[in-house]
Amino acid sequence: MNKESVGIVETKYYDIPEPITLDSREVLEDVTVAYETYGELNKEKTNAILICHALTGDAHAAGWHEGDKKPGWWEIVIGPGKALDTEKYFIICSNVLGGCKGTTGPSSINPKTGKEYGLDFPVITIGDMVKVQKKLIDSFGVNQLAAVIGGSMGGMQVLDWIVRYPKMMKKAVPIATTAMSSPQQIAFNEVGRQAIFSDPNWNNGNYYETGKVPENGLSLARMIAHITYLSDESMDIKFGRDLQDKDEISYDFSIDFQVESYLKHQGETFVKRFDANSYLFITKAVDLFDLSINDSLINGFKNIEAKIEVISVDSDWLYPTEQSTEIVTALNANDLEVSFSEIKSNYGHDAFLLEKGQLNHILSKFLSNNIVEDIMMENFATIKEAADVQDAAKLMLDKHVTHIPVVTDDYKLIGIVTSWDLSKSIAMNSNHLKDIMTTTVKYCHSYETIEDIARKMRKFDISCLPVVDEDMKVLGLITTDQISNLLS
Amino acid sequence: MNKESVGIVETKYYDIPEPITLDSREVLEDVTVAYETYGELNKEKTNAILICHALTGDAHAAGWHEGDKKPGWWEIVIGPGKALDTEKYFIICSNVLGGCKGTTGPSSINPKTGKEYGLDFPVITIGDMVKVQKKLIDSFGVNQLAAVIGGSMGGMQVLDWIVRYPKMMKKAVPIATTAMSSPQQIAFNEVGRQAIFSDPNWNNGNYYETGKVPENGLSLARMIAHITYLSDESMDIKFGRDLQDKDEISYDFSIDFQVESYLKHQGETFVKRFDANSYLFITKAVDLFDLSINDSLINGFKNIEAKIEVISVDSDWLYPTEQSTEIVTALNANDLEVSFSEIKSNYGHDAFLLEKGQLNHILSKFLSNNIVEDIMMENFATIKEAADVQDAAKLMLDKHVTHIPVVTDDYKLIGIVTSWDLSKSIAMNSNHLKDIMTTTVKYCHSYETIEDIARKMRKFDISCLPVVDEDMKVLGLITTDQISNLLS
Repeated sequence: MNKESVGIVETKYYDIPEPITLDSREVLEDVTVAYETYGELNKEKTNAILICHALTGDAHAAGWHEGDKKPGWWEIVIGPGKALDTEKYFIICSNVLGGCKGTTGPSSINPKTGKEYGLDFPVITIGDMVKVQKKLIDSFGVNQLAAVIGGSMGGMQVLDWIVRYPKMMKKAVPIATTAMSSPQQIAFNEVGRQAIFSDPNWNNGNYYETGKVPENGLSLARMIAHITYLSDESMDIKFGRDLQDKDEISYDFSIDFQVESYLKHQGETFVKRFDANSYLFITKAVDLFDLSINDSLINGFKNIEAKIEVISVDSDWLYPTEQSTEIVTALNANDLEVSFSEIKSNYGHDAFLLEKGQLNHILSKFLSNNIVEDIMMENFATIKEAADVQDAAKLMLDKHVTHIPVVTDDYKLIGIVTSWDLSKSIAMNSNHLKDIMTTTVKYCHSYETIEDIARKMRKFDISCLPVVDEDMKVLGLITTDQISNLLS
Repeated sequence: MNKESVGIVETKYYDIPEPITLDSREVLEDVTVAYETYGELNKEKTNAILICHALTGDAHAAGWHEGDKKPGWWEIVIGPGKALDTEKYFIICSNVLGGCKGTTGPSSINPKTGKEYGLDFPVITIGDMVKVQKKLIDSFGVNQLAAVIGGSMGGMQVLDWIVRYPKMMKKAVPIATTAMSSPQQIAFNEVGRQAIFSDPNWNNGNYYETGKVPENGLSLARMIAHITYLSDESMDIKFGRDLQDKDEISYDFSIDFQVESYLKHQGETFVKRFDANSYLFITKAVDLFDLSINDSLINGFKNIEAKIEVISVDSDWLYPTEQSTEIVTALNANDLEVSFSEIKSNYGHDAFLLEKGQLNHILSKFLSNNIVEDIMMENFATIKEAADVQDAAKLMLDKHVTHIPVVTDDYKLIGIVTSWDLSKSIAMNSNHLKDIMTTTVKYCHSYETIEDIARKMRKFDISCLPVVDEDMKVLGLITTDQISNLLS
């Protein structure tokens, strides 16, 4: 086991006490959510990060289930010292609604019939998955997530979150995804569904009791999808035209090439871990996903408040970079704080699960507090101009501070008084703040970057800066101590 | 019916009198080839062009079958006045070995059993298809084709032709193809085959007598393949996220989007016109295709003699441009005459069937004789320096020419004598060629372009140029009459 792993973990379950009204207007009762958490929720409940999984993922994003040979699906970025640092953040990941890994889905028991739902399960949307996640987050008493992060279908959930619950997160990271499924993406999903429908064992979705699972259909669906997850180049590197267990072409319909054997294996192992009906419902949710309003993504992205980092993969042809830059353009058009990174990789779409170095770098840079607003002290003392030196000295002792902004009655910054100024008052034998305070005070704004502020403080040899708004009203303080803490 | 069409045509059949030895070393007897021809074979049998069809094509490349609503599959480039001008060329197109459109394939009767071959049909290669085409070409008494042209799997046949029978063609045009199937291409084909294998009606290939055709499997295979023939962009333009016969999403598994309906329709109509076993054998042949020798395409392309125009489509992601430029690079490394054009289109792979304007332009430019070698007269008279004026005059009358190159005993060019020079001799009263011939003679090389030569002749006001090799030996003559004929 990796030293940086969260170690042994267990999937937990939350029974949502109230019914969920779906986008289809149907109401789903008795929804259970399977989830895992890593790290500790802090007292202020401000360090929670929600991870959203892709099409066939699950709640097990990191660590090891007792006895397992493989860790969770995003072990590469979750754990002590990694970008999603479990010593800093409280990481939550849940299985999506409609899934088959513990959260209510078509293979769950329908409380109304006592049998598996099958096709009686209602058609769900990405938004419905998000509504269920919101109930789980509420159950922790978390009022605002530090971030929502996910790739592929997980990225769709991220985008839905920032639109649906704009105040619920500080930051959001949609990776290798789109704001609306394209006809090509729908086409690949539809062929997969047709493969399942065509399997006689599917039996119109009622196969739970027959014991005959639509393995062929589900396996075919997975094989088709799997091709779209890899780049042409990565397949060339991985397989080329190498033969499988033979030295010469056999001139029959047995498997000739390694790539054929690999795909078949992918299909066969998938069937063991996934439910065919879940595959139908989840791919349908993906196809229905479209955040544009009146054909405009700019309209769809109104009222968002999160800071967003959009990430794409250069060799991803299923969710190509252009679909990410469309998202960036529409967010920018709404004057949002958005940044964009393209992962350089030949893995194709799967890179969001594999490119450890780049993902850790991009995520940790984005999550680390990098503007003044993120780290400024919002609890601080101020003092009015009319106050005397003794008031200031008492305040410093009380609040354990060395810098106090001097403000007008409506809290506008007019100067600053420091412990050094107080020493000066003793030398000058003056009791008036006005005489000793620094009036040529330096300040900064909440949106400035830490790098810029650090440079300014160094240049002027200042250890504390008031943060002001456009009207010079004091919003907070920032100190060199805080900045240096960031780097530790 | 289009005025430029070859009009009503019929498929003909050729029974190959001898058995074919396949690449697998199996021997196939009683092979019949279905073919069509358009235009007339000239007396010299030098104007024949072979067209090779793609995966599911047939011999019916142009014109109309009696009563049909659609013309042949490459009507856009074949016909009077088009690039493959039937007033100039004799166009031949045959159904491939293994097909189901008249040429022997798995649905044909096995002479040894009296029943359909099914899986007893031997696994064939692209090379085997080409061997069968060669027998057909031989049956016309054609010793050299003016060109071999084809797109997609047809392009593979073109590449196999130029390697297998290097002297059999003057020119070759592989379009939107590759010299070796990539793992991604194999993967898509393999999933299609698995879809057929998984259909219970397939019955291990024995469905001809059961009356139950593996429609679901074949339809799925076609749907998968069809996605790869279109570009993401063309699907966006054609379908977007438009709904099919409904105003709102229906929240069930009926068809929501137009793209789903279109694909399903493609699958259903394909099943009516194609044999599932043929699909297995032909896709296998495509997968086995690899012209490299010891992992080197440069080695594979040794000994080719044809002039080659490689064409790709910028939006083709199934056979992307890089695979065409690999072909160009390997041909260039063998010092071959090769040119390359990329069709600008958003149609994706299908552009080779659709981009009428660009295809006609590229093909007609390449097929039209555009270097001196292509149009120079190779039957011409020469005269030795020692001859007298009377010999020259007699030769001119005999051969109906106005220009005779004057050569040394080893046929090196030293001057030219024209009818005008002869008139001069009368005026000068001289009988010696030496006195009257032009010795500051202009000449050209066989590899120069017609455009350059036409410019030179105009500049120097010359109506005839000797064509010489590097040793100044005369190879032919080129006249302004010939050049002006090209433009008519």
